[in-house]
Amino acid sequence: MPQVYTFENFTVTFPAEYVAQVEINRPKKLNAFTEPMFHSLGAIFNRLSHDPDVRAVILTGNGDRAFTAGLDVQSASEGGIIVNKGKDLDAARKATLLRRHVQEYQDAVSAIEKCEKPVVAVCHGISYGLAIDMTTCCDIRICAKDTRFSVREVEIGLAADVGTLSRLPQSGISMSFVKDVALTARDFSAQEALQVGFVSGVYEDKKAAKGRALELATLISKKSPVAVQGTKEVINFSRDHTIADGLNYIKIWNASMVQTKDVEDSMLAGLKKTKPTFAKL
Amino acid sequence: MPQVYTFENFTVTFPAEYVAQVEINRPKKLNAFTEPMFHSLGAIFNRLSHDPDVRAVILTGNGDRAFTAGLDVQSASEGGIIVNKGKDLDAARKATLLRRHVQEYQDAVSAIEKCEKPVVAVCHGISYGLAIDMTTCCDIRICAKDTRFSVREVEIGLAADVGTLSRLPQSGISMSFVKDVALTARDFSAQEALQVGFVSGVYEDKKAAKGRALELATLISKKSPVAVQGTKEVINFSRDHTIADGLNYIKIWNASMVQTKDVEDSMLAGLKKTKPTFAKL
Amino acid sequence: MPQVYTFENFTVTFPAEYVAQVEINRPKKLNAFTEPMFHSLGAIFNRLSHDPDVRAVILTGNGDRAFTAGLDVQSASEGGIIVNKGKDLDAARKATLLRRHVQEYQDAVSAIEKCEKPVVAVCHGISYGLAIDMTTCCDIRICAKDTRFSVREVEIGLAADVGTLSRLPQSGISMSFVKDVALTARDFSAQEALQVGFVSGVYEDKKAAKGRALELATLISKKSPVAVQGTKEVINFSRDHTIADGLNYIKIWNASMVQTKDVEDSMLAGLKKTKPTFAKL
Amino acid sequence: MPQVYTFENFTVTFPAEYVAQVEINRPKKLNAFTEPMFHSLGAIFNRLSHDPDVRAVILTGNGDRAFTAGLDVQSASEGGIIVNKGKDLDAARKATLLRRHVQEYQDAVSAIEKCEKPVVAVCHGISYGLAIDMTTCCDIRICAKDTRFSVREVEIGLAADVGTLSRLPQSGISMSFVKDVALTARDFSAQEALQVGFVSGVYEDKKAAKGRALELATLISKKSPVAVQGTKEVINFSRDHTIADGLNYIKIWNASMVQTKDVEDSMLAGLKKTKPTFAKL
Amino acid sequence: MPQVYTFENFTVTFPAEYVAQVEINRPKKLNAFTEPMFHSLGAIFNRLSHDPDVRAVILTGNGDRAFTAGLDVQSASEGGIIVNKGKDLDAARKATLLRRHVQEYQDAVSAIEKCEKPVVAVCHGISYGLAIDMTTCCDIRICAKDTRFSVREVEIGLAADVGTLSRLPQSGISMSFVKDVALTARDFSAQEALQVGFVSGVYEDKKAAKGRALELATLISKKSPVAVQGTKEVINFSRDHTIADGLNYIKIWNASMVQTKDVEDSMLAGLKKTKPTFAKL
Amino acid sequence: MPQVYTFENFTVTFPAEYVAQVEINRPKKLNAFTEPMFHSLGAIFNRLSHDPDVRAVILTGNGDRAFTAGLDVQSASEGGIIVNKGKDLDAARKATLLRRHVQEYQDAVSAIEKCEKPVVAVCHGISYGLAIDMTTCCDIRICAKDTRFSVREVEIGLAADVGTLSRLPQSGISMSFVKDVALTARDFSAQEALQVGFVSGVYEDKKAAKGRALELATLISKKSPVAVQGTKEVINFSRDHTIADGLNYIKIWNASMVQTKDVEDSMLAGLKKTKPTFAKL
Repeated sequence: MPQVYTFENFTVTFPAEYVAQVEINRPKKLNAFTEPMFHSLGAIFNRLSHDPDVRAVILTGNGDRAFTAGLDVQSASEGGIIVNKGKDLDAARKATLLRRHVQEYQDAVSAIEKCEKPVVAVCHGISYGLAIDMTTCCDIRICAKDTRFSVREVEIGLAADVGTLSRLPQSGISMSFVKDVALTARDFSAQEALQVGFVSGVYEDKKAAKGRALELATLISKKSPVAVQGTKEVINFSRDHTIADGLNYIKIWNASMVQTKDVEDSMLAGLKKTKPTFAKL
Repeated sequence: MPQVYTFENFTVTFPAEYVAQVEINRPKKLNAFTEPMFHSLGAIFNRLSHDPDVRAVILTGNGDRAFTAGLDVQSASEGGIIVNKGKDLDAARKATLLRRHVQEYQDAVSAIEKCEKPVVAVCHGISYGLAIDMTTCCDIRICAKDTRFSVREVEIGLAADVGTLSRLPQSGISMSFVKDVALTARDFSAQEALQVGFVSGVYEDKKAAKGRALELATLISKKSPVAVQGTKEVINFSRDHTIADGLNYIKIWNASMVQTKDVEDSMLAGLKKTKPTFAKL
Repeated sequence: MPQVYTFENFTVTFPAEYVAQVEINRPKKLNAFTEPMFHSLGAIFNRLSHDPDVRAVILTGNGDRAFTAGLDVQSASEGGIIVNKGKDLDAARKATLLRRHVQEYQDAVSAIEKCEKPVVAVCHGISYGLAIDMTTCCDIRICAKDTRFSVREVEIGLAADVGTLSRLPQSGISMSFVKDVALTARDFSAQEALQVGFVSGVYEDKKAAKGRALELATLISKKSPVAVQGTKEVINFSRDHTIADGLNYIKIWNASMVQTKDVEDSMLAGLKKTKPTFAKL
Repeated sequence: MPQVYTFENFTVTFPAEYVAQVEINRPKKLNAFTEPMFHSLGAIFNRLSHDPDVRAVILTGNGDRAFTAGLDVQSASEGGIIVNKGKDLDAARKATLLRRHVQEYQDAVSAIEKCEKPVVAVCHGISYGLAIDMTTCCDIRICAKDTRFSVREVEIGLAADVGTLSRLPQSGISMSFVKDVALTARDFSAQEALQVGFVSGVYEDKKAAKGRALELATLISKKSPVAVQGTKEVINFSRDHTIADGLNYIKIWNASMVQTKDVEDSMLAGLKKTKPTFAKL
Repeated sequence: MPQVYTFENFTVTFPAEYVAQVEINRPKKLNAFTEPMFHSLGAIFNRLSHDPDVRAVILTGNGDRAFTAGLDVQSASEGGIIVNKGKDLDAARKATLLRRHVQEYQDAVSAIEKCEKPVVAVCHGISYGLAIDMTTCCDIRICAKDTRFSVREVEIGLAADVGTLSRLPQSGISMSFVKDVALTARDFSAQEALQVGFVSGVYEDKKAAKGRALELATLISKKSPVAVQGTKEVINFSRDHTIADGLNYIKIWNASMVQTKDVEDSMLAGLKKTKPTFAKL
Repeated sequence: MPQVYTFENFTVTFPAEYVAQVEINRPKKLNAFTEPMFHSLGAIFNRLSHDPDVRAVILTGNGDRAFTAGLDVQSASEGGIIVNKGKDLDAARKATLLRRHVQEYQDAVSAIEKCEKPVVAVCHGISYGLAIDMTTCCDIRICAKDTRFSVREVEIGLAADVGTLSRLPQSGISMSFVKDVALTARDFSAQEALQVGFVSGVYEDKKAAKGRALELATLISKKSPVAVQGTKEVINFSRDHTIADGLNYIKIWNASMVQTKDVEDSMLAGLKKTKPTFAKL
């Protein structure tokens, strides 16, 4: 593991050329997140974003039982995050601290979405709360058959505030389902997640799911990185804008991107049935 | 039925603590809507919105045959709504009357969406026209197996104007399906509705569907009302805005909402495996 | 075929009253698109849009093997489109040419979406690249069982720039699926397309699919054209705007449109069980 | 004063055909607003909006010293509005009450902007706080030379929340000026208001300013009400949308509105130099 | 005058290198617009947009008395535009024709704004109605001292529908002034136009104003066309979007545009005090 | 100068309680910016944003001749920023580097706008290029009489890309003026800046201007910081959103912020004519 990717409770490896794998690694605590882990998460994805040796990323969790159980509630209820902060302040001053605090957490999680390289999420077992916040930032979501998802936050008296409520309604899945699981905090299965389109593949077990993720990541990393990274950026932009704005954006984007040598190389490789290689990006 | 909820053609009951049920009650006319019923509908949901004894609402229809057949066309074609209004006016002045008129109807129907408490729709039998306008305002949609849905308006020469055409494309369901049913006015079944995600559950009959709705509403009403109502509000906001705007909104929202005692109570209850109770809202 | 609809590589016919069918007709080259074909496509749909004898359109491809294989890469790699244009210019000047060029292609394809009459796409066989750009502009998508779809552009080093990346994320289908197929350029089947809602019907073979399309188009063309065309326009507007904006738009739209004689005629026909006829539009 | 316009602390008169004048009438308290006055304000403008005998409205204040001193702080600090409400509630529940409360006040003030008829504001003397909230809802703002404006709210520990901070940045005036006066709560003169464009006319004294307002209102009320009301609506819409959306909106709006007899009558009157009269609206 | 710019009632000349001048040329009718003139206007600006020999455009009117008196009301009231079209159609069908018709006029006028090269408007004398629609599309507006502007449309029973009401509220000028002149149709002087910022310069007479326009256009045409055309595009984009969107857009835009040789040439010229020349665009 | 504010070429002082002053300090080079200075600028404002001892900030430049001459072109043309970066890359890969690079610069400059405390800009002498980028991020702009402003970037072959083109069109100043100065790169004077509203005050010399800035900052710093910081945030939000969105935002914002003790303290101080003090924020 390169020095720049060494963070406690995370393991970053490179299972194939141009493919990075980020593993949440705190299995004894069901990969639950403490405050420092948020900052590490953000730092890792910010680095992957500009790393020329990376063209696709896999996000997964270590251990058999959980992708992540979400926020470490024990730690949060003891430590300062929500409960103890600013005890003597008036409600407005507390609110200001809370805003700044939530902003930091959001920035950390959004680093996954802002990462210029596609990210494939592989869920298994318990995938609660923060699992949804993080995977809705990922580009492709697949999971093992034993996965139990839950938008968990109402269970602890909270409207989810690090991404789930903003991104789920823009994920192309039934709003009736979104409200159902967000308002009740009930578990939903891998099968239900596939049916509504929250994941695009369910596999026999964690190993098979990770295998498929590696296939997908490898497949993506063999395409022109100019084409791949542009595709991610433009889809995300288009999700947030009108069709007219989306069309304009890809036009401006491709004004430079189509000038890449990759287009010619890809076309020729296609016509000649060869495998193209592409410069780093 | 409390005095404030007494309206002709509607029955409002309270089948469980914190759960209200609104029943359209004009079964002899397939629960078709006359003009005054629109105003009653709006008034009921405006009151439920701020009623501290309500935390979840069920919307259903009385009788075996229909949730609602939609606008009472007989009454509309005789009375003034569309056909007779402003006979001697020029087209611009008629248009002004029509705009004001549609605005009133839209406001009545939108009261369901604006209601701060989650609303679960239970459809059965004929669920035409206004049934879609109303249920797309609801948070969760389930139905009985015998339900026959239809976006009915083109059948009477109209583009649907009290909500269906605005909300269906934002409901996380296949646009090809949306256009198919909206342009042809054809019936679609409970099964098809489930497949595309228009409903998130289909039950054997009306009784079973109502039973499930009561379970959902009861489940929701036992969670922190601060968390639940925030979740509804923020999902609806996020549906209409960019991810960046959505993240900012939940941050500002939670700046006050996380200061509730409900968070601490929920967390402790979770750790101690007890059942929390929450103050009214 | 009327003179105004005579273009090389396209066949326009009128299989039923008020129904037009546009067939891509270059089967020997798998209906792949050369530069002039873009302009023809735009011209055809611009004319259909205001043609009073047309109320619904079918878009299909001639031949057994392909709806379309997309851009004719051979022709593109030889001719000027992307590779050869502006060899001696600096990157900024090339970018300007490219922007203008992409704009023309986008305008041609968007003519399908801007066509005031509903368009039903019928895919079969190879349906690659431009097939997705064009059909995401259509209102209803159905296909034959043998269809093989692919968002093809990353295969040739490109982020798709004539519509796919802008319209797919607004099509009410799983974003995980959208990114999966757009980032990998992998084929997906008719069945998968149905499961995620990209198409709303799969039929045994091309003939059956075309038969269903004709049924749909005929059904639509028998409704009030005022109601039908308003429905298309308002759904497309609502897809791109907030609920509040959508409600306002249909209110302004119907201020004139509800004044049509079609409303009265439709209502009376409904009550009397007769078949209404409507004036041209 | 017609019965429907009788409210305590307001005087509604009709100084010319089709012209209504709303006068804030609590001069002993510098026309400061108590809670019930908000509701009266909203009710008056809601009625004016659809009153066919009204085509233009003047908003002014009775007495020599003040248009309005804004919120009645004495009353607010004693009564419940901000300080006392919900003493025993947690911060989240208080926040909910506050949200509902601000919503009511905003709705009352926004009724001025939503009024379909143009509103001319005439300020004089002290014009503080709520004076800015209300007049930024008006279409035309003029004032007497002695006017002293102030965005007052930071002086009482508040960010202004019933309109000023939302509408000033959209009023076409220097943002440096907007922030200067909003952050310091300093007074600004009629002359400074004219220089930056907050008002479009300054007159010698209150009488002269009211005289000019009557001229403007009379002039407007002699034009086609179809043209005038459309102009107000479309400018307000365009302020909030892109140019493309604005162009589309006026196109849809005029599709019915240009069908008025007023266009022909106005054109002929122009060519024949006669004075047209127009039907009510 | 090159063949491609030869249109009746317009004169296109090239008073300096890279500078084009478009003159409305129907002085006997105060340069009033007939229907065909709209199409010519659009065609001229569409050609200028991509003409590599043009880097700045001046828009002016021939004759002493008027820039333009606007729509030729005589011709409009006789001919078909508004009054006579579709006499036998119902209001909805008339509305459809009107929408298509307004769209054509809007497209013609918007061609000025879409022209990639900056356009300087020079007004003088009568500058009514369409004068405002056209000049709000221009980038810089200056005028002679004798100019009399008027947003004329309410005078003929219309809300202005080819651009004025959409663009004036986005022009950085006092909204109170905008509503004043749009609702009353009153004349406003060159001096008032300067005071509110509608024009950015007033000159002694038409000759002086045209002289200044030529100076401005010449100055602009000597800068890098890459920098100039990017500046126009990005300002127009930013006017219609949030700051965040605007910042993102210029970032993507400059990703290609900064690669021009013009940057190096401009920098060196600045350091060496020489005059750079730039390749065509 | 506290350690945390020690950066080369910047001097941060505290001329009054709660008031910070940031001085660009490279007078021998007319305060021109090198690459590291961007990062320092961002770091300083990020710290000021959350510093509880700061309630208002002044931004100024050291030396008599210049606020800043903008980008250090000499250094830029030698060093890597624009010209030399990525010599061997294809145009698409260069574009990627450029995008990342511009993003960094934009983030640094936007830190001024994102600073939660109001920032007053004081310009004098040469205020070119980056001077506009930075001051359009400030809340209040004032200047000395000798100031010479210029949107300089087209002079070096660039469309301005770190803020000017995005923020000027949203600054409430004449768009004709904005385009005039942005397209020609001409100087404009303090007087012209005042006339169009780019600055809201012009003072005799730099000393007088700094004196006024200190008065403004001190005045602001004596108000409730809850009210002041909310006012800044909500005005900036409202600038970028519709009126409806703006009203909703301040409602949510004040739900917590009005719960501050500052409201009661301010009201009582107003009624008792005393000077309130407020807790840190």
